[in-house]
Amino acid sequence: MATRLVVLVDAPDRPGLLSETTGLLHRLGVNLVTSLGYAVEDRARLLLIVDSPLEPGELEERITGQLGEDAEVRAAPLGPQGAELLAEFLLDKPGLVNLLEVYLEPPDLLDALLRLPGDVRRRLYRILSAQSLGRIMLLADEATLREIAGSLDPDHLAKAIATLDPDEAVDVLQKLPEKLRRLLLGRLPDPLRREALQLLRYPPDTAGGVMTTSVPVLRASDTVQQALQLLRSGDYDVRDTIVVVGDGGRLVGLVTVDQLLRASPGERLGRLAARPRAAVEPEVDREEVARMMLRYDINRLPVVDREGRFLGLVTIEDVADVLAEEAAEDIALLGGLEKPRERYLKASILDLFKSRIPWLLLIYAIESVTANIIKGYEDVIQRIALLAAFIPLVMDTGGNVGSQASSMIIRALALGEISERSRHDIVYVFLKELATAALIGSTLAAIGFGFAMVLSDGDVMLSLSVALTLLIVTLLADIIGATLPIVARRLGADPAAVSGPLVTTIVDISVALVYMGLAAHLVLGAR
Amino acid sequence: MATRLVVLVDAPDRPGLLSETTGLLHRLGVNLVTSLGYAVEDRARLLLIVDSPLEPGELEERITGQLGEDAEVRAAPLGPQGAELLAEFLLDKPGLVNLLEVYLEPPDLLDALLRLPGDVRRRLYRILSAQSLGRIMLLADEATLREIAGSLDPDHLAKAIATLDPDEAVDVLQKLPEKLRRLLLGRLPDPLRREALQLLRYPPDTAGGVMTTSVPVLRASDTVQQALQLLRSGDYDVRDTIVVVGDGGRLVGLVTVDQLLRASPGERLGRLAARPRAAVEPEVDREEVARMMLRYDINRLPVVDREGRFLGLVTIEDVADVLAEEAAEDIALLGGLEKPRERYLKASILDLFKSRIPWLLLIYAIESVTANIIKGYEDVIQRIALLAAFIPLVMDTGGNVGSQASSMIIRALALGEISERSRHDIVYVFLKELATAALIGSTLAAIGFGFAMVLSDGDVMLSLSVALTLLIVTLLADIIGATLPIVARRLGADPAAVSGPLVTTIVDISVALVYMGLAAHLVLGAR
Repeated sequence: MATRLVVLVDAPDRPGLLSETTGLLHRLGVNLVTSLGYAVEDRARLLLIVDSPLEPGELEERITGQLGEDAEVRAAPLGPQGAELLAEFLLDKPGLVNLLEVYLEPPDLLDALLRLPGDVRRRLYRILSAQSLGRIMLLADEATLREIAGSLDPDHLAKAIATLDPDEAVDVLQKLPEKLRRLLLGRLPDPLRREALQLLRYPPDTAGGVMTTSVPVLRASDTVQQALQLLRSGDYDVRDTIVVVGDGGRLVGLVTVDQLLRASPGERLGRLAARPRAAVEPEVDREEVARMMLRYDINRLPVVDREGRFLGLVTIEDVADVLAEEAAEDIALLGGLEKPRERYLKASILDLFKSRIPWLLLIYAIESVTANIIKGYEDVIQRIALLAAFIPLVMDTGGNVGSQASSMIIRALALGEISERSRHDIVYVFLKELATAALIGSTLAAIGFGFAMVLSDGDVMLSLSVALTLLIVTLLADIIGATLPIVARRLGADPAAVSGPLVTTIVDISVALVYMGLAAHLVLGAR
Repeated sequence: MATRLVVLVDAPDRPGLLSETTGLLHRLGVNLVTSLGYAVEDRARLLLIVDSPLEPGELEERITGQLGEDAEVRAAPLGPQGAELLAEFLLDKPGLVNLLEVYLEPPDLLDALLRLPGDVRRRLYRILSAQSLGRIMLLADEATLREIAGSLDPDHLAKAIATLDPDEAVDVLQKLPEKLRRLLLGRLPDPLRREALQLLRYPPDTAGGVMTTSVPVLRASDTVQQALQLLRSGDYDVRDTIVVVGDGGRLVGLVTVDQLLRASPGERLGRLAARPRAAVEPEVDREEVARMMLRYDINRLPVVDREGRFLGLVTIEDVADVLAEEAAEDIALLGGLEKPRERYLKASILDLFKSRIPWLLLIYAIESVTANIIKGYEDVIQRIALLAAFIPLVMDTGGNVGSQASSMIIRALALGEISERSRHDIVYVFLKELATAALIGSTLAAIGFGFAMVLSDGDVMLSLSVALTLLIVTLLADIIGATLPIVARRLGADPAAVSGPLVTTIVDISVALVYMGLAAHLVLGAR
């Protein structure tokens, strides 16, 4: 099967260069999607977008073979590598973007833009069609969106946003500063403005924030024929489901298009509508919505108010990426980073510094407690310097056991396997972790004892201190690691935010106390 | 809006208990979905499934108020807490599961089963309807599936699997041992067996493994009317899209049902079909497929062979949970766990031990190198015991900087922002991390110097060792942390698998070398 590739050719300018290249592509069975070119002094530059059955490397070789060794040919699949080639091509002639945007999907275009210097990128925003710009604003992170908003006048921005569906437009508006948002709302065309104002009442991370309001709605007394007619003539985002409502707009149920096709034209929708298996209020967290839809295999989830009146529909497409996003946030939090607000490529070094230093300083402050504890045992270390050699080993073991336990509990909480509110579950986790930690701790203590005996040339008391510390630390670290995420959830915080580095650091303090205390008693006591 | 709750009532048996309770519910505006009950000696036990506008706590109080203080009433939403109540009810009368399964979604039923003792659970598998059992087998982790397969005879299992769609049946079959799989395949009804055999050719984590083959397919010369007829009469999993093929089954394009509704009945499908924006071969990784569908906003992605012949369709529903699953795996890997093969609730303590100990032992082995390095400087520590106090501080800082860098790069790789194959990106990451680390390192070194001066009562050389170590370690840890995921990806490994604990440990060794080496030179040299 053919893969879409970006090919950038850089060769001495000569007549027929393009037709020679396209002729070759034709013979190779490569399908040309579009070709663009320009000359700078005596060099010609061609950009080809192709569907190629050949691998990029092979295609490069074949074209170089045709054009000669002084031609530089680079081919890469769309995505990060292709974006690099696109950016290189646009760098000299940004104006050609209008010939290119037709053939590129917005995510690929955005990838290329992000690889260009800021000033070129800002020029490009101004040239792009309203359609492309709208999609790009929808895909952009907050920093890029601010940059776009800063490069264009409000009319231009409003025109781009007006090309989006209402729920998409609201996504963009919600990321803009309050003042600009109001200004832009005033310039949106009327039906879109009204829908947007309605949706803006809900925070972006709730069911109300992700739902679609552009849905065909009919009454229970309407017929199948009317429903098919509405689907034919109306312009809705959801085109495969009819929402059926009763008195006062109360949700009765949903009818799918394939039900309509199988029913007789005169049948009433009220008889056909299936009561939805679930419905949510608009304030429900979008992560919970996503989890519910996946758990119960629901494609279209109605959003209703407290009185059961229909407000909108959340589609599986709306939430497909929510769980992946939330998990990516967890990975960042576990790694000791703040919630990422922008792409790595876009973040300045100062941005990165600012997002990383707070955690490091916090950990630093806590770790200074550890340093003070060890300092308190300075005389012990002076007499038995070898004690210091085991500090990293015991601390690392504690940290690892703690983060293993945290990861496992975060996962079980996230999958809804256990609940932070169930007393049964908390007791269960506590006992299960205690037993597992005892098993792991004994194993590690036994190995640690042997290892310490070797390293200390048979100092039994020192080796015993190491082994006992390992056992106690494993128990402590496991319980702390397993409990913190549950406590965090009960306090309404993200379990991942308080785990990771924090667990390690809290464990370090306990390790310092246990290890130095034990060593002082056992080893010094014996001498 | 009403929430679905499970209510378990335990009260002295008396006539009219149930009608008293349901009468109260009616007055409270609580909708009764089903009620079941039995008596053990002089106690009656009622299980109610209700849609309640009241919170669980309030409902408990109101029912207790009605039935008297000697009634124990517990209410909880479906999910982990509700499952606990269901399990408690089923424990004494497993046979009642058949009256219950009709009102429960399979995930809720499975949650309840997992909270029961193994012998009761195995009895329940035998009682469940084929439908429920089929769904439960689809949802179960590998350990539970093995338990189910071990509790029932092959005919019973085959009947349950036959209630599933072909791609679901294959999901289940693929998790069973080879021998049993063949046995079961032989007992499946004919069209399902043929489809399953076709799908079984592809690994479960590829496009071919997740695609649906139950799709309406027509030729380009067929008409809109024929397509609508096919949708009306056929029984397909995908009911909103017609696949249009040409000579030899080559994919021409897709037509959606709303296109059909708007077109004239006599129009040829070939004229209507939109060329799909993308198509994949069956071997492509399902994670890549999911990412592509989300990136390009594609709901139905065709799978074709090398010659472009249509094989099946991947729907957004098929892959909605793939990215979340992959991210959950990453979280586990970063926490130093193996890929989770079973639920936390289901895993025995020995399972947990086995999945956690390998990492811990590996880290242990590497950390013993650190211990040996520090032992080599035993005499230095003997003379300046305070050195030991800073070991946790510098190592933890290194570990945290390293895991921050790893998390960031894993995220950027996963989102396709940077590519491990692009030389530009690798250089870019290296330079950006070097600059960020220099900034972070200087900050931490400055604070560290001040802190060490205080703790050491003004020992400049010792404080300088600490500060210099912090700077060097930050640079080293950041580069190691950022590079390891890229190297892992290039070698075809999961970036998360080699990060987390591994980064910390490798950093520890470098820290030991740098810190002890610097201290020996600077501090001892000065004395």
